[in-house]
Formats: sequence, structure tokens, C-alpha cells
Amino acid sequence: MNAVMENTLAQGKNAFLQMACLSCEEKNISLERLATLIEENQDAILDANDRDLAENKDALDNALYQRLKLDAGKLKQVVQGIRQLVKLDDPAGKVLATTELDDGLILTKRAVPLGLIGIIFESRPDVMPQILSLILKSGNAVVFKGGKEAKHSNQAFMDAVIHPLTAELDFLPEGWASLMESREDVQAMLNYPQYVDLVIPRGSNQLVQSIMEKTRIPVLGHADGVCHQYVHGSADLDKALEVVIDSKTQYPSACNALETLLVDEAIADAFLPRLAQRCENEGITLHACEASITYLPKAKPATPSDWTTEYGTLTLAVKLVLGVEAAIAHINQYSSHHTDGILAEESAVQARFLKAVDSASVFVNASTRFADGFRYGFGAEIGISTARTHARGPVGLEGLVTYKFELTGHHQLVKDYVGASPARQFTHRTL
Amino acid sequence: MNAVMENTLAQGKNAFLQMACLSCEEKNISLERLATLIEENQDAILDANDRDLAENKDALDNALYQRLKLDAGKLKQVVQGIRQLVKLDDPAGKVLATTELDDGLILTKRAVPLGLIGIIFESRPDVMPQILSLILKSGNAVVFKGGKEAKHSNQAFMDAVIHPLTAELDFLPEGWASLMESREDVQAMLNYPQYVDLVIPRGSNQLVQSIMEKTRIPVLGHADGVCHQYVHGSADLDKALEVVIDSKTQYPSACNALETLLVDEAIADAFLPRLAQRCENEGITLHACEASITYLPKAKPATPSDWTTEYGTLTLAVKLVLGVEAAIAHINQYSSHHTDGILAEESAVQARFLKAVDSASVFVNASTRFADGFRYGFGAEIGISTARTHARGPVGLEGLVTYKFELTGHHQLVKDYVGASPARQFTHRTL
Repeated sequence: MNAVMENTLAQGKNAFLQMACLSCEEKNISLERLATLIEENQDAILDANDRDLAENKDALDNALYQRLKLDAGKLKQVVQGIRQLVKLDDPAGKVLATTELDDGLILTKRAVPLGLIGIIFESRPDVMPQILSLILKSGNAVVFKGGKEAKHSNQAFMDAVIHPLTAELDFLPEGWASLMESREDVQAMLNYPQYVDLVIPRGSNQLVQSIMEKTRIPVLGHADGVCHQYVHGSADLDKALEVVIDSKTQYPSACNALETLLVDEAIADAFLPRLAQRCENEGITLHACEASITYLPKAKPATPSDWTTEYGTLTLAVKLVLGVEAAIAHINQYSSHHTDGILAEESAVQARFLKAVDSASVFVNASTRFADGFRYGFGAEIGISTARTHARGPVGLEGLVTYKFELTGHHQLVKDYVGASPARQFTHRTL
Repeated sequence: MNAVMENTLAQGKNAFLQMACLSCEEKNISLERLATLIEENQDAILDANDRDLAENKDALDNALYQRLKLDAGKLKQVVQGIRQLVKLDDPAGKVLATTELDDGLILTKRAVPLGLIGIIFESRPDVMPQILSLILKSGNAVVFKGGKEAKHSNQAFMDAVIHPLTAELDFLPEGWASLMESREDVQAMLNYPQYVDLVIPRGSNQLVQSIMEKTRIPVLGHADGVCHQYVHGSADLDKALEVVIDSKTQYPSACNALETLLVDEAIADAFLPRLAQRCENEGITLHACEASITYLPKAKPATPSDWTTEYGTLTLAVKLVLGVEAAIAHINQYSSHHTDGILAEESAVQARFLKAVDSASVFVNASTRFADGFRYGFGAEIGISTARTHARGPVGLEGLVTYKFELTGHHQLVKDYVGASPARQFTHRTL
């Protein structure tokens, strides 16, 4: 129990109830004003970010330093993103289905905001205004925790942008967005499923895994991205090789990058020597199974842990399999169910793979790197989920809504439909 | 850890992977044969049920005894239900959306079976074949636990129906449906989110609550049904009174029966004396707030716990509130978010209530007893969920599916869309 945190969460849940009633116009006014406040307070935000950079200079490698660093260009992108969000349809309020149950008894299934969302993310401070804009557009409330390296930047966003925004716009309730200060606050938050409806962790595998293991609140995210490509005997080998290289090298640390390549025994002779050559040129280290290593002279022998490893670097595991069923079985056993593809020209084999592979994204003749909310055309990305319920795969704004059933009648009674003689019959007509 | 249970669950998960590939025709053949096997083995099933009845005669009250008892009529209904299911659309395989990302790069969002489902239900043995038929139709696998009172009946279904069905139809994998023997098995099952994708508890509030508190696996169900009606100042009082009585009395032990009645102060004089009279005639005991009890001479004083109690009997809590906002606030604080209604003629008030009440089903001028999958026209009901993610409110077969993204291309590479000059542009055209 944590009384301060419980109070924050209770206030957040109450704020959600008001946010859920905002009109689309009020949401868009908030987004426009959010964008303008960021522009107007750019100096204060960049000053705070300079303090973060100075305090963390020695602790961060160059990649993390670049992620932590804000500049006018990054803020301009954030502001552009917020203004694009204004143009998107409101994800809440949409009618998903309408059914006439009987004359004058109308059932409407309607998308509605989801609730109080807990968001935990690591160092990048530009994630925070992005998240706040998605929360506003969807009509939810949020408690979030940024990386401790970005604490001044995040606090500056709160002080210079969020607090003035909330004070200025009467229709925004106090507490619709609050900052968690510490890891202990996050731990406490995970223990309040009565207030928090969804947790979205964005960060290292370790962060996501530890959150998934600790809470009964639904989690939207993915711990691992162990993605596969399978080169079938019918593949166009020239094109397949290009897709494999793109899947591995286009951004190796991304969750949708290729980690394990399955090659059909039927084409081992024809494909593996070319793979070896190309990987050497691209600086890719291969970890090869016993059957494939004879074709891959510079490869290291793979160990069982290679089949479950997300390298995140220019390393690729290679395994020979005999036929599409063996490939499917390997993938269903070892994949993180994020994104897995086949390279094949035979349409029956493509169809079998699409049906039998149990992953959020299943690809035919395309780079695994396409598995992304923006590339899928969602306009905004909340995250990529390897959960099977609520939202799966790349998730757009629809991941921040649920639905409710609205029934409007003329004082109909159930006793007239059940037990009466003659009983009234439902019409169940789709409108 | 429980090695036997882990083995059962691993087999169930593997069976799911095969079930997910069944054609609609194979599913319907299974359902037809399931129905026939129940008809052919009626005697064995009823004999087993007689043993359950004999062994539990002294331990059960009449209502529970009637729920436990099978007869030819109940089995005929089960068989009819299974044959109706054959006619429903296959919930899996449906295309939910298609987008062209670029020329020849097509994204399909497709409904697919959900996984291995854990189901726990109490004494009614006719629930078991219903559940198995829903699992078959949706292409999932199941581990389930019936009430211990029904153990002979449940075992007879397995021995006389499920095992022969699985042996007879080559396309049904071993282990697609298994029985858990004990509460310890259920506890173990709740600890394996890597195998079990959804838990559906059907039984007492206590059972459901304890399962929700013990597992990280998503739970489809509801612990409480604390449902409200609010009689607004603009209500048609004659008709409102009939709806209140139907909501309370049509089946008082159902989860969608009325438990708390909110009455606007504006109509206290006009409405409460009539309510008192009618409730006396119907045998309803009232627990009234301080402000309303003066109008309700036979009522008992309500205590704070009345606002969160699901009586399940002919008892009704009554509270006076001033205006629709006070009614909404009471409901959002005390409701179990199952089903809450307003009785009002003013359309602005109706609209405000529909928008602001945060419950799975929100009604205007209709009995709460309509909140039910069959009445909503879903054809089959999995359960009623008060969760906010995955499935909310009455849930039909769509609660047993998820979706995946299928992307088929012509060897497109992400590097041509990102960083290339000129970069290819996505078309993002809805097909």
C-alpha cells in the first residue's frame, strides 16, 4: 500500500471519467494548445534537457546520449506529430454495430475511452509529449514515469506545458496526467488494478518482462522480438537474400529485426554459400546449426540458446529445416510471436504458413521491418503487443479504447419475452 | 510447479495450434458428431448423473439439486444448441480490414482463434457440452474443471462423447479438451500464462473473485453484478415502475438483476409511495437511505454496505439523489460496471447518462435483465465480462478469437522507404 500513490491513482481515475466525456472539438483544442505551448516554452524545455545531459554525460554511451538529447528539430517533429493527430478521426464515440432487438429496442456497440493508463518509458524525453497527445486524443487519463536520466526534461514539460494547459482549459480535469517520481511509485501503481486499466511499458526487454511478471493489470507491449524468416524451396533466391539482409540490417536493434533464419534443406546448396558471402560483406556474424555450418565456413556453432536470443546486433542464427511444417513447428516453439515471415513462390505453401504460424504479424515475401504502426498506416503508434487479448501486433489509437453497449427502449420488460404466453420474439435485425 | 499439469497444458497448447488450422467444414462436422454422440450415449450420461445426484442428495438444497440434475429434456436442449451453432458464421478467419501499404504490399487483419482457454464452472453439468461446442466452433483448445458435485456426469461426457469423438475424427488433435481433476490443478493452471491465454470462470462471485486475484492470465467474467436504475424527474412514472419491478423480480439471482434504485428528489413525493406499495405486493424488501425512508414506512435503514451489495434476492436498496450528475457519480463509484440504466423522457438527460456512466451496458428505459448475450443477438454466450480490455459486457463467440496481421508482398525492402533518396512512399489505401 502507498497512500500517496493511491490518492494520485484515484484522482486519475476520476479525471478519466471527465476526459471520457470530452467532445472531439475539445480534444482537438487541447492538442492545438499543447503544440503551441511546446513551441512557446521551447527554451525552458531545452534548458532542462541541458541539465539532464550535463548530469548524465559520464553515465551514458553515445547512443543513449543521442536519445536523451532534445533540440529544436526534435521538438518541431513532436509539434508536427501533435498537429497531425488533430486530423485523425476520434477513436472514441464510433458506432461499432447497431442491432434492433425488437421494435424500438435498439442496441448500439460504441467505442469508448479505456480508462487510466499507466505508462513507463526509458530515457527519450520526446516520448512524453507524444504520449500525452495520444491520451488527449483518445479521452483517457495517464500516470507515467520517464527515465530518471530525463527527469529535468520531463518536469519541464509538466511545469511549462501540462500544468498551464490544464489550468487554461476548463474542460481538462486536474490529474488527467501525473508524473510518477520513483520506481517505488511504479511498483505501487502495478498493485492497483481497481484504478489502472492498462499498463504500457516502453523500454528494455528487462523492464517490460519485469512489469509483465508483476501485475494483474493488462500489459500492452512486448518483451522480446525473436523474429524469423524461412526460405522455402520455392523461393526466388536472389530476392529472398535481399529481404533477409534488409530484415537483419536495416535497423538491427529494432524489435522487428530478423534474429533467426530458417533455410530449407532443399536449397541449402544453392542458398547458403551466397548467404555466407553476403553476410561477410554486410558484417553479419552467423551462428549456424550443425547441418548448415558446413556451408558457412566463418559461422560459429549455434547453441540451443541461440534459438531464443534477440541479438539486437548484426548477429544472425541459421538453421536448416526440412519442409514448411518443420519451419512452422520451429517458429511456433521458439518465436516471441512478434513477426515471422516466409520467402516462397508456391502459393499453397504461403497459405499454409500464414494460417499455421501463431504470431501477431505473419509475412510472405516482405521484410520483417515492415511490422510497425506507422508503416501499417495507423497514423499513431501506441506500441507493439505480443499479448493475445485486447490488442495484438502494432497498435494504433484503437489500443486506447474499449467499447460499451447502449440499449435504448420504450420501457420494454424481459418478462414479456420470457415466460409470457405468447412470448414476444426478438427481431435481432442488424441496422 | 506441477509437472503433470504443465504437461497437460503444453499438450493443450500444441493441440490449439492444430485446432486453429481446422476448416469451417471440419468444425461443423465435429459439432454434428458431438450432438449425435450425446444422443447415442444419453443413457450412460444420465446414469452417471444419477450417481452424482445420489452422492450429493444431502449436501445440496433444492435449487442446486435442480441445477445438477440432467434429464432427457435438458440434453435435448444441449443438442439443439449445438446444431444451432453449426449455422453460425465461423468467428475465425474473417477479414477485419485490408490495407494496401504500397503497390503489391497488402496488409490483412484477420480474426484467428485465441489459444488454450481455461474454464472453471460450478455444478451444472450441461454447461460442459455447451462449452466444448463453442471451443470447437472457434478453433480453440480447452482445459476445464467442473463442479465436484458433477464429477461422474463430467467424466461420462469425456468417456462416452469427447474421447470417441477425438478418436473418430482424425483432424481433432489429442488433448484439445482436457479435464482438470482438482482445485490444485486449477491453482497450477493459473500459474502458466505461457500456455493458457484466457481464463473463464463461471460460478459464484467468490470463485470468480479468487481467480481474478490469483492470476496474470486475462480473465473473462464478472465477480459482482451490482446494477442500478435511476428514475429521473422526467420519467414516465407508471412505466418506470414496471421497468424497476421487472429489473428486480424477473430473475433476482441473475447478475443483471437490479440491486440499487436511485430516485430523483424531484419526484420522491410522487414515486416513492407507489414504489412502496408495489414492492410490498411483490414481496420486495427495501433498504432505504435516510432521505427516502420517510416515504417507505416498511423499509429498513440502509447502511453503507448496501451500496455495494449484490443481494441476489428480492431485496432492493433505495437512495434519493438530486439530479442526473449525482446519479452518475453514485453509479460510477459503487457500480460493478455491469449494467446500469436510466428511466427518463428528456433526451439530453438520456444522452448525458449514456455518455458518462462507465459501465459495460448502459440502458435507457429498458429492464436491466436485457443484458445477456442471447438477448443481444449473439447466438452463443461465453459469459459477461466486467473487464475493460479484450471483451466487455455480454460476450459471444468473438470473445474466443483474437487477430493477426498478414502481410504479403513482392520482396519489398524497408530501406527503400526509409533513408533512400528518393524514398518510396506508402499508399495506405483501404481496400
